[in-house]
Amino acid sequence: MSSDGQTTGRGRDVDIRRVYAGNDSATVDVVAVEEPLEVRLGYTSAGSRVEKSISITMRTPGNDDELAVGFLFTEGILESPDQVLEVWHRGPPVPGDSELRNVIRVDLADDVAIDLDRLARHFYTTSSCGVCGKASLDALRTQGQFMGAVASSPFAIASDVLVGLPEKLVGEQEIFGKTGGLHASALFDRDGSISHVREDVGRHNALDKLIGRLFLDAALPAENYGIIVSGRASFELVQKAAMAGAPMLAAVGAPSSLAVEVAREFDMTLVGFLRGERFNVYSGQARI
Amino acid sequence: MSSDGQTTGRGRDVDIRRVYAGNDSATVDVVAVEEPLEVRLGYTSAGSRVEKSISITMRTPGNDDELAVGFLFTEGILESPDQVLEVWHRGPPVPGDSELRNVIRVDLADDVAIDLDRLARHFYTTSSCGVCGKASLDALRTQGQFMGAVASSPFAIASDVLVGLPEKLVGEQEIFGKTGGLHASALFDRDGSISHVREDVGRHNALDKLIGRLFLDAALPAENYGIIVSGRASFELVQKAAMAGAPMLAAVGAPSSLAVEVAREFDMTLVGFLRGERFNVYSGQARI
Repeated sequence: MSSDGQTTGRGRDVDIRRVYAGNDSATVDVVAVEEPLEVRLGYTSAGSRVEKSISITMRTPGNDDELAVGFLFTEGILESPDQVLEVWHRGPPVPGDSELRNVIRVDLADDVAIDLDRLARHFYTTSSCGVCGKASLDALRTQGQFMGAVASSPFAIASDVLVGLPEKLVGEQEIFGKTGGLHASALFDRDGSISHVREDVGRHNALDKLIGRLFLDAALPAENYGIIVSGRASFELVQKAAMAGAPMLAAVGAPSSLAVEVAREFDMTLVGFLRGERFNVYSGQARI
Repeated sequence: MSSDGQTTGRGRDVDIRRVYAGNDSATVDVVAVEEPLEVRLGYTSAGSRVEKSISITMRTPGNDDELAVGFLFTEGILESPDQVLEVWHRGPPVPGDSELRNVIRVDLADDVAIDLDRLARHFYTTSSCGVCGKASLDALRTQGQFMGAVASSPFAIASDVLVGLPEKLVGEQEIFGKTGGLHASALFDRDGSISHVREDVGRHNALDKLIGRLFLDAALPAENYGIIVSGRASFELVQKAAMAGAPMLAAVGAPSSLAVEVAREFDMTLVGFLRGERFNVYSGQARI
């Protein structure tokens, strides 16, 4: 009996296909739960109580109160614990999952003055997500030009070609990158040829560089190619690959729960733990 | 002769102390260059040309034009290459380093209409940095309550105690976390005892949870403790540890150039590649 979608602690079961040394089996893997958390601040301004949304971050649920105040403290917004009246999950749990509560509110004591300008200056934006989760899937559906190209792509690759890709990727990196100091992203074709290798300390940046090159070359959608990334597959990376119209994302590391969800939604093939003679297929098995 | 600070490609030389199986040597390590990139958009609004700052991301310099347009495309702001007139590094190189240009501008064709509201909705904020780099160091100096505690902390730990920490950290993680699906952060004392282990798909979230716990317990500054993290040490993690007043950050993975720079600035001990019987000390050697 499948346990697909069942969450235990910080992990969630997903049905997968595991390939190891040429052997193929259907099994269950556990992936890290990734969900958005919106942090809101409740404070007194000009005599009345106001609520302001401060940030949205992709996180693994649990210890959300610590995450919210830790974030506000390390950003220099909070200074001491007596400034905090209460930290509470706002609104009902997400429908269908009583464990997930994705909005948290930090209520400040009446006499705490917050410098909202400073707050704005000290956050910087990063890519993807918007309101995240469901809203983000909707945004991909409406904004993504190439979602149809992903779903209908006849791209396919043989298992024995796929397992050779990580070594080729490392071979294409600069000497320094081989030491593990940098994330890499690259394009591959059905014959396993790798091109357009891009590197960065940030995995999302390496992928943005790769997609930016294809964009500038008017080479999108990348419907006849797969994308390989050196680290884990987060929601953000799957979202970017989908925007580029790539029908396959292969990661050397583990995928997150939301990465699997999004890949399935758009019929993208998602491969994880592509190492040595093994890999796991989390979505779109028909292409391998 | 020291090559400390010299940049070659995506790597930068730093003088370090390497400990391996009890042997100690002074040597040079190469770390990934990490610098902020500000992306600005140039476009026509109501007949005149305007410039707007869109995002700041920490990245490894190189292929900045691809990064900028790739980011704007995957966010759904750009749709096709003919919308882009020009992509150029704005302003002079950063003083003292002719290779680094940290502001890039993407100029759009006159007839391209940008929905700035959508843009705001589709970025989410993440922690740290503000205007990054130098400005961020200044912010740490003025906002960080516990910078003095970091610099003056008499905390110290023996090499043989330090090398035992990663195994203890993994031992404290949930079974699922041991598989590598989650990043972990924890506090350790001079005897090598580990406490307050926190896990998350995001490394910065795991650290925010840890610091948030200490904050709520009124246990900051953490001047008598070190912090260990399971992955790489980015600028962001060093910045957070410094805000918490921790005199030592030990990472299982590699540090970035900016992480080393910030740790040195605040006399924090930074340890990287803490694996098996080895580790590298990038800053604050006196505490080991």
